[in-house]
Amino acid sequence: MSSKDKDGLKASATDRFERGVDLLRQVGGENYDVPIRALDDIAPALGRFTVDFAYGDVISRPGLDLKTRQLCTVAALAAMGTAAPQLRYHVLGALNVGWSAQEIVEVMLIAAVYAGFPAALNGITGAREVFIQQGMMPAASEVAHDEELSRYEHGMQALDQTSHGSGAAVIESLKDIAPDLGRFVVEFAYGDVIGRPTLDTKLTELTTIAMCTALGTAQPQLGVHINAALNVGVTNEEIVETITQMAVYAGFPAALNGIGVARKVFTDRAK
Amino acid sequence: MSSKDKDGLKASATDRFERGVDLLRQVGGENYDVPIRALDDIAPALGRFTVDFAYGDVISRPGLDLKTRQLCTVAALAAMGTAAPQLRYHVLGALNVGWSAQEIVEVMLIAAVYAGFPAALNGITGAREVFIQQGMMPAASEVAHDEELSRYEHGMQALDQTSHGSGAAVIESLKDIAPDLGRFVVEFAYGDVIGRPTLDTKLTELTTIAMCTALGTAQPQLGVHINAALNVGVTNEEIVETITQMAVYAGFPAALNGIGVARKVFTDRAK
Amino acid sequence: MSSKDKDGLKASATDRFERGVDLLRQVGGENYDVPIRALDDIAPALGRFTVDFAYGDVISRPGLDLKTRQLCTVAALAAMGTAAPQLRYHVLGALNVGWSAQEIVEVMLIAAVYAGFPAALNGITGAREVFIQQGMMPAASEVAHDEELSRYEHGMQALDQTSHGSGAAVIESLKDIAPDLGRFVVEFAYGDVIGRPTLDTKLTELTTIAMCTALGTAQPQLGVHINAALNVGVTNEEIVETITQMAVYAGFPAALNGIGVARKVFTDRAK
Repeated sequence: MSSKDKDGLKASATDRFERGVDLLRQVGGENYDVPIRALDDIAPALGRFTVDFAYGDVISRPGLDLKTRQLCTVAALAAMGTAAPQLRYHVLGALNVGWSAQEIVEVMLIAAVYAGFPAALNGITGAREVFIQQGMMPAASEVAHDEELSRYEHGMQALDQTSHGSGAAVIESLKDIAPDLGRFVVEFAYGDVIGRPTLDTKLTELTTIAMCTALGTAQPQLGVHINAALNVGVTNEEIVETITQMAVYAGFPAALNGIGVARKVFTDRAK
Repeated sequence: MSSKDKDGLKASATDRFERGVDLLRQVGGENYDVPIRALDDIAPALGRFTVDFAYGDVISRPGLDLKTRQLCTVAALAAMGTAAPQLRYHVLGALNVGWSAQEIVEVMLIAAVYAGFPAALNGITGAREVFIQQGMMPAASEVAHDEELSRYEHGMQALDQTSHGSGAAVIESLKDIAPDLGRFVVEFAYGDVIGRPTLDTKLTELTTIAMCTALGTAQPQLGVHINAALNVGVTNEEIVETITQMAVYAGFPAALNGIGVARKVFTDRAK
Repeated sequence: MSSKDKDGLKASATDRFERGVDLLRQVGGENYDVPIRALDDIAPALGRFTVDFAYGDVISRPGLDLKTRQLCTVAALAAMGTAAPQLRYHVLGALNVGWSAQEIVEVMLIAAVYAGFPAALNGITGAREVFIQQGMMPAASEVAHDEELSRYEHGMQALDQTSHGSGAAVIESLKDIAPDLGRFVVEFAYGDVIGRPTLDTKLTELTTIAMCTALGTAQPQLGVHINAALNVGVTNEEIVETITQMAVYAGFPAALNGIGVARKVFTDRAK
C-alpha cells in the first residue's frame, strides 16, 4: 500500500484529484465544477473532499461502471428525499453518462415501492426540471405488461425470477395478519413496477440495494434484494461497490450497516 | 380470487380505477386530479399507480374509514418531513373529509413528540398555507388540562389509560441512567400532548402508529403503541390497515417491518 | 419532587417559562421570539411547548453547557436534512452563543461522514445564508494535517486516540468483504475529517453522538462513539444530556432508543 510511502502518497494524492476531476467532468458536464466552486467561500475542504474522496476514491473504483453507479446515486437520493439540489445534479449526471430520461423516470417508479409515493413524486418533480432544461423530455409511453397475464401472475413471475422461490415465503409469512399486503407486494411492487421491462433485472436490483442501504430502515429488504441480485447474476463485488458508494451519499453508518447485511447474505449462501 | 380470471380482472381493473377516482375526488376536492395530470408528461404510469393502487387498492379498503385514514396520512407525512407538497395536499384532504383545522393542528403536536419539534413546526407551516388558502383558520384556543392535577399526574393518568400499567415499566427502566427523560415522557409527551382532549385516544394511537411505521426508526415505540391502541379498543384490523397504508406513503419496507412488529404484539397478547 | 405540589407547580411552571425565555433569548438573539410568535395564530400550544419544554425543561438542564448543546443541535439538524428553517435558526444561535463560523462549518464536514455529502452540502448552504446575513463569513482557510504522515497514518492516529484500539477491530472486521470501505473509514472519516484540529475531540464525539441519535439508523455507530467519547473524557452525564436533548429535535423515540444504546455501553464498561 503506497499510503505509507511519502512520495507514493504525494503521487497518489495527485492521482486522486485528477481522477476525481475527470469523473466529475463526465458526470457534471460543462458546469461540472459549479457545486465545488460554490464551496470556495466558506467550505473549501468540503469541495476538496468531494473531488478527492467522493469521485477520486469512491466513484472511480473498478468493480462497477460509472453509468451504473450514477443510476444508483439517483435512486438513493430520490429515496432519501432530503437532497433535492443533489438529486437534480445527479439526474443531469445520469443523462450525461448515457441514461435516457425514460430510464431515469423508471428509477422513480421503483422509489415509489421502496420509499413511498411522495419520494417518487418529488423525484419526478426534480427530474422534470432537468429534462426541460436539457430539452430531453422522455416519450411518455406507458409500458404495458403481457395482457395474457393477470397482475398477480405477472408479479409472481417477476418475483420468482429474482427470488428463486424464496419470495413466495415472504408472501406466505404475511398470510397470518396481513395477507393483502402480501398481495400488494406481488401485484403492485412486482407486477406493476419491478416487472416492467425498461430496466434490466440487474439494474433494478442494484438501484434497490442503493435505496435500501441509503434509507437505513430497510435492513430485511436489503437482505432480500442482495439475494435477488446474486440470483440474477450480479456479483458480490458489484453489491459491495454499490453499498460502499452509499458512504458518500448517505454517510458511513448507512454503508457500514449495509455491508453487515451483505456479509450475512454472502456467508449464508456460502454454506 | 378473480385475479387469475381474465374477464374478472378486466372488470376488477376498471373497478380499481373507478374506486380510486371516486376516493381521490373526496380527498382532493375540485382540483383532485391536478397532481395526477401533472404526471402525464413524463410519468403517466406513476399517475395511474396513484389512482389504481394507492387509492383504488389501499385507501379504498374496508376496515378503516376514509376520515381516519386521511388523518394517519397527514401524521405520517408530517413525521417524515420529506414530503412538503404532499403534506399540503393531504392537509387539504383532511379538511375535505371532515377534519377541522384544530384537529389537524393537534396531529402536528403529536408529531413533536414522535418526530421532534422541527417536524411539528414545518408541519404547522404547511398546514397554515392550506388553512389560509381555504379561509379555514382554526380558533387558536389552547386546550388546558385539569388544573387540579400537576403535569406529572396528568401525564401518568394519560399513560395509565393506554398502557394499563406497562407504561410505568418504561419510565421505571429509565431510572438507572436517564430518569429525567422518563419524567419528560410523562410530563411532556403524555401530560402536555397525548393527554389533550381534542382527539380521542383511539385516533391519537392510530396516528402515532402511522408516524412510527413511516419513520422506520421507532420499532420499540411502535410496539408500545400497538399495545396501547389495542388497550383502548382499536382492533387488530384497524392497526393492520394503518400500517398497510404506510406502504403508499413511506414504502413497502416501512409497512412490512411495521407488520412484523404488529405480529409480535398480537402473538404475545394471544398467549 | 415539587410536581405534586400545586403551589410548587405553579411556581415551577413560571420558572420553566422564565428559564425558557431567558435561554431562547441567548440563542435566538434580538428576534428570538419570531418563531414562537409565528405560532400564535394556529398553534400557540406548540409555541408554549417550545419555551416551556424545549428550552425551560431540556436546554436549561445542568450537565451540559449551552454552548455545547447548541453545536449538538446544529449537528443533528444538518444530519437529519429535514429541517432547513430550524437549521438556519440554530446556526445563528450557534454564532450567538459564541461559536465561530469556522467551527460551524467544521460540524458540516463531520455531517458528511455520518449523514453523507448531500447533508453536508445542504448544511453549508443554510449556514452560508446566515453567515452572509450576519456579516460573519469565516476565513476559508483549509486546515492541513501534519504533512509528515500519510492520510492513513493520520487517520489511524485519530482513530486510536478515541477508540483505544477497538477501532482497529472495526476496520479488521471489514477485511473479509469490504476492505476498502475500512480504508476509507481510516483515511477519509478519521484522517481527513475527524482528525482535523478545529474542534476538540470531546466536541467531535458529542456532535457525532447527537447526529447518530437523531438519525436513528446508526445504532452500532452510536455505540462506537459513546465509547469513544468516554475514552476522551466525556462524562456519562454529558452523553445522557446530549441524547436526551435529541427528544426535542428528533423526537422521543430517537432519544429513548439512543439511551438504550448508552445503557448497554455503560453497563459493558462497568463489567
